Amino acid sequence: MRIDGIAYRTIWLDPDDGWSVCIIDQTRLPWSLEIARLTTVEEAAHAIRAMRVRGAPLIGATAAFGLCLGLRADPSDEAMARDASLLAATRPTAVNLGWALARMRHRLAAVPPHERAARAYREAQAIADEDAVQNEALGHVGAPLIAGRARSGDTVNVLTHCNAGWLACVDWGTALAPIYVAHEQGVAVHVWVDETRPRNQGAALTAWELGKHGVAHTVIADNAGGHLMQRGLVDLVIVGTDRVSRNGDVANKIGTYLKALAAHDTGVPFYVALPSSTIDWTIADGVRDIPIEERSGREVSHMSGAMADGRIGEIAVVAAGSPLANPAFDVTPARLVGGLITERGLCAASESGLRSLFPDAA
Amino acid sequence: MRIDGIAYRTIWLDPDDGWSVCIIDQTRLPWSLEIARLTTVEEAAHAIRAMRVRGAPLIGATAAFGLCLGLRADPSDEAMARDASLLAATRPTAVNLGWALARMRHRLAAVPPHERAARAYREAQAIADEDAVQNEALGHVGAPLIAGRARSGDTVNVLTHCNAGWLACVDWGTALAPIYVAHEQGVAVHVWVDETRPRNQGAALTAWELGKHGVAHTVIADNAGGHLMQRGLVDLVIVGTDRVSRNGDVANKIGTYLKALAAHDTGVPFYVALPSSTIDWTIADGVRDIPIEERSGREVSHMSGAMADGRIGEIAVVAAGSPLANPAFDVTPARLVGGLITERGLCAASESGLRSLFPDAA
Repeated sequence: MRIDGIAYRTIWLDPDDGWSVCIIDQTRLPWSLEIARLTTVEEAAHAIRAMRVRGAPLIGATAAFGLCLGLRADPSDEAMARDASLLAATRPTAVNLGWALARMRHRLAAVPPHERAARAYREAQAIADEDAVQNEALGHVGAPLIAGRARSGDTVNVLTHCNAGWLACVDWGTALAPIYVAHEQGVAVHVWVDETRPRNQGAALTAWELGKHGVAHTVIADNAGGHLMQRGLVDLVIVGTDRVSRNGDVANKIGTYLKALAAHDTGVPFYVALPSSTIDWTIADGVRDIPIEERSGREVSHMSGAMADGRIGEIAVVAAGSPLANPAFDVTPARLVGGLITERGLCAASESGLRSLFPDAA
Repeated sequence: MRIDGIAYRTIWLDPDDGWSVCIIDQTRLPWSLEIARLTTVEEAAHAIRAMRVRGAPLIGATAAFGLCLGLRADPSDEAMARDASLLAATRPTAVNLGWALARMRHRLAAVPPHERAARAYREAQAIADEDAVQNEALGHVGAPLIAGRARSGDTVNVLTHCNAGWLACVDWGTALAPIYVAHEQGVAVHVWVDETRPRNQGAALTAWELGKHGVAHTVIADNAGGHLMQRGLVDLVIVGTDRVSRNGDVANKIGTYLKALAAHDTGVPFYVALPSSTIDWTIADGVRDIPIEERSGREVSHMSGAMADGRIGEIAVVAAGSPLANPAFDVTPARLVGGLITERGLCAASESGLRSLFPDAA
């Protein structure tokens, strides 16, 4: 997608040397656009751990390129195993991380060491390219749902939660891909952006990427969405997901369930956009069985942002001594989900719906 | 209620001189407990305007005491009219402000000027005392709803939104009054405190007052409540309200509707606590007709809190240039409200329910 008119991905090879890895340092967003250059596997591991890159697909691509950097320095079996372990340990819960590393090692195992680095770069680039292609496909599946809500000449208002945009992926995004495609097709789209407490990914990342690409949007407190739906100011909701169980229950950033309830209560269509890799065929009942990560209460009690002098500062926003709880995700029951937008098409949020698109799945 | 074991109200006459007015400066909470002493009507007006006092009942009491300060300096008809206008203009939308000033002027109109100040102090004190008595009564109506959810030996978990505690009133509070009464009756109560973006009254005020009184609580992001209800961690919800229409629709701080939806979806009882002065008998359909205040987007984009060095600082938390919207309230339809807790008893959220308790109302 574009930043002030210039096309970017979240990760790419430096065109000057052809081997070092460039990323947008997301810890600096939305305050400044800083490109970081990664030259060692340790730097790649640190970038993931320090959340300079985040979002499951982008973490996977960064791990793949990180392994390339390691193999460039030492292509031996021992080094490859050590580097893969280092990368795998950075964010143990991100499913794409393990998947990308397993794919790389599977492809490289039988390759002689002196050819490994070159082969690794081709595979890492393929992982990145496939992510972009898959998300663009998903965008084309979802865009008609937006265009279909347009009354003649009116802007279509889409509400989204958290950041499931191109910054979380290599390009396009998941929830935002249909919005970008509709925007490129000339549909007048406006996005209500939930700020998404406690980590504020909506206010910091979604607002930034939509603004830089030129998509109209408005940032709101997470509390506001229900009221906006009640007043007819939301035409549809599109969110991403971290895991979908095979019955169509959707785990996503905490607060998603509340927006699904409001959409259901007010007759607003509620869609979830996902690459099929997000479907967990082993879980039959997501509300009951998807585990929910409990994160540090400090994310609730403290906030960072730009001070008046431009520096990044941190403040406490909760009464001292008050206990805190911070569940990071919630699960929206399939009955509240109007449809799943996947790279193969739209389906009902149900096992039969998912099987209709993925009959060959486990 | 108590602060570290010492009983306080939010407003009282200085016992040393018997005429100056003491308030807790709420702009300093939760970072420090500072008592401000008001000696002129101008200082009282400023305290309301600058939100050193807030909450409709407390604003009303402060205006009443402010008029006393003015009459002490000049008890003439002209001065009384001027002072009442000054106070009325501080927060034009707070219904209790106009009500308290009208009551004071009605009582004082026929009193000769030299007796006015003394009479005014008695009336202002009566307004404050009546508020405390009414809220305590409301607490006794609501407390059995909490006690009734206690399974043997278990803690009862109550979720609340915003601050409808004693800090918003003279004492006891509305939504928190049943919690304080249950706590004093020995019921083990724990309160989930929504932080209540964008102004954070939950994290800053509700958490502080519950903590200082010794009531167990945990602060959560507004997004978390639905998930907690889904997991069986909430036994009931109690919120306050800014206005109830005669059909039982409830206007309250933005985000209340989302919690009511989650409570309804998960079978958690949802109650609203209110003094009967909050009922607007002129509005038949609250969802359609209660006006919703749109406040400055700066409340969403900027936050203030305690910096590491203890000073109060402000940071920006939204991408620069992104538009903002900030509806301050929403309306929860009566069908989602399990009951209204009033000073006369519990009733259904409906016109017939309200009429059963208030048959003589307009």
